[in-house]
Amino acid sequence: METTSLGINVVVIGGGTGSFTILSGLKNYVSNITALVSMADDGGSTGQLRDEYGVLPAGDVRQCLVALSKSPKVRDLFNYRFENGGLGGHNFGNLLLTALEKMTGSFSEGVELASEILQVNGSVEPITLDPVTLVIRDGTKTIRHEHVIDDMVFSKPKPKIWLEPKPKVNPKAIEAIENADMIVIAPGSLYTSLGAALVVPGIGKALAESKAKKVYVCNLVNKPGQTDKFSATDYANELERMAGAKFLDVVIYNTRQPSKTLLKKYAAEGELPVAQPKKSTSKRYKLKGTELLSGRTGKTVRGDVIRRSLIRHDPDRTARQLMKVYFS
Amino acid sequence: METTSLGINVVVIGGGTGSFTILSGLKNYVSNITALVSMADDGGSTGQLRDEYGVLPAGDVRQCLVALSKSPKVRDLFNYRFENGGLGGHNFGNLLLTALEKMTGSFSEGVELASEILQVNGSVEPITLDPVTLVIRDGTKTIRHEHVIDDMVFSKPKPKIWLEPKPKVNPKAIEAIENADMIVIAPGSLYTSLGAALVVPGIGKALAESKAKKVYVCNLVNKPGQTDKFSATDYANELERMAGAKFLDVVIYNTRQPSKTLLKKYAAEGELPVAQPKKSTSKRYKLKGTELLSGRTGKTVRGDVIRRSLIRHDPDRTARQLMKVYFS
Repeated sequence: METTSLGINVVVIGGGTGSFTILSGLKNYVSNITALVSMADDGGSTGQLRDEYGVLPAGDVRQCLVALSKSPKVRDLFNYRFENGGLGGHNFGNLLLTALEKMTGSFSEGVELASEILQVNGSVEPITLDPVTLVIRDGTKTIRHEHVIDDMVFSKPKPKIWLEPKPKVNPKAIEAIENADMIVIAPGSLYTSLGAALVVPGIGKALAESKAKKVYVCNLVNKPGQTDKFSATDYANELERMAGAKFLDVVIYNTRQPSKTLLKKYAAEGELPVAQPKKSTSKRYKLKGTELLSGRTGKTVRGDVIRRSLIRHDPDRTARQLMKVYFS
Repeated sequence: METTSLGINVVVIGGGTGSFTILSGLKNYVSNITALVSMADDGGSTGQLRDEYGVLPAGDVRQCLVALSKSPKVRDLFNYRFENGGLGGHNFGNLLLTALEKMTGSFSEGVELASEILQVNGSVEPITLDPVTLVIRDGTKTIRHEHVIDDMVFSKPKPKIWLEPKPKVNPKAIEAIENADMIVIAPGSLYTSLGAALVVPGIGKALAESKAKKVYVCNLVNKPGQTDKFSATDYANELERMAGAKFLDVVIYNTRQPSKTLLKKYAAEGELPVAQPKKSTSKRYKLKGTELLSGRTGKTVRGDVIRRSLIRHDPDRTARQLMKVYFS
């Protein structure tokens, strides 16, 4: 680990888990990080709090705050999940963000105050401050709600997606993109997490106009019924389609095959590794294949920060690769 | 307000609301404050969390933490009360203390971590770390539970009270008493709050042996059915009876009558001001009568920190009186 970090402005766009990995790794090398967070989540503890208290979704924001926190104890606290009773299933951090939003009357102020309490190095910005619902057009049907869409099998690939009501982008998100030296699209659910962020009006244009180096860290495993047989270029092209702008400079993808045992375990759930891209597919953005897999066996930390899967990105390896890309 | 504070060790013993008032005032003059908190509370949000999560009572500890916090925003957060849904009625601070106890496996560690988060100036120590139930002998009946006893009309005054199971005193409480320069018994419910603290075995002896100046700030209003017609000396004598030790050096009581309107409002609820003591009653401890009433009309702060009554102690006036007593 470096003891000092680089004073460049890095923006990380994504949802919860993928952003958590990228932020956890990058924060050891870079001091000015802004996480722009997808705001369509409406499942689980987050969905319940949205329903009961009319607040904005806290879960993904919480994960990004935790990733950037300097205090390990406060990190544990934020991810602490009540197990039973009236609070059963709620993450403490979600309750904190809900209380802060109700108290201050503003989600944005609430996140700022939570950042102080968590001693966050950097900042976390919701990509929009409007209450939005994710919508997808699947064949002739219109399907609503992130947690519903997340479980869907699409009747045709590459659906049209949008948010309702049409949201205003958070001006701080645009400002962060304008001032960025590097912008990272974190791995994550292509439609329900990354798409939900990129379809916010204004984001695509800001990305296209930004002078930052724009890098996508590609997913490791395809989502059955949604991204079957996708390669890194399929993901990248979908990101640009949803953003309505060609903005990517570099796509980083993993080249190391997981162990056969792991592959088998995943295959049993219909999950197969992202296909290796054909080198000739694109000349516009650079494809960088490298080893990004975490060597450790998957262990869930308290709460649900780290995906309960064993095929995942190594935070430090991925961060180093991003730094290499930045300097090349 | 002083800009610097005195480096003497002050211990404040009590429950929630009364301790809150004393701590809020004293913290502007004294830097080393330890609040020793009664642990028998089992009503409301606190009682529900005790039942559902098997944790220690958080409510009174929360109020003391809030009183000693340096951050006004975090103070608001700790007192924030969820209004509806599954979290309805819970104070955020109570949820925090519950999460921290479950997470660390220790209420004591939880309180310490909460103190860090709240930027607390001083420390808050539960008087015992055992789960206790308050018990009272009323005539021939034995009545259990703080929230039940709190609402009782005693069939005879001055009942015997104790805790079950017999608790071990928190060694840090004894240590604080031993090192104190001044010990303040805060105003509060005589039996359910002050008594519940003083009957913990070891407290009375430590108070009697301590070289500190020991001062009781007497209540303003008698509790119907429990302390009717009591004067400051009745309160003081009951405190010493419950502690099983003569320890008081000074008793401060209020001499200013509340307004007639206020008195009428209270009388309608059966609540009458504490009687003025007969000057000759005691030669052992000094009786100091002075104006302690808050001049402001009662306004409830967010949550329930300040009593929903209008007759109450002025925190600064009371603190100044305590400092005067310390130096006399």
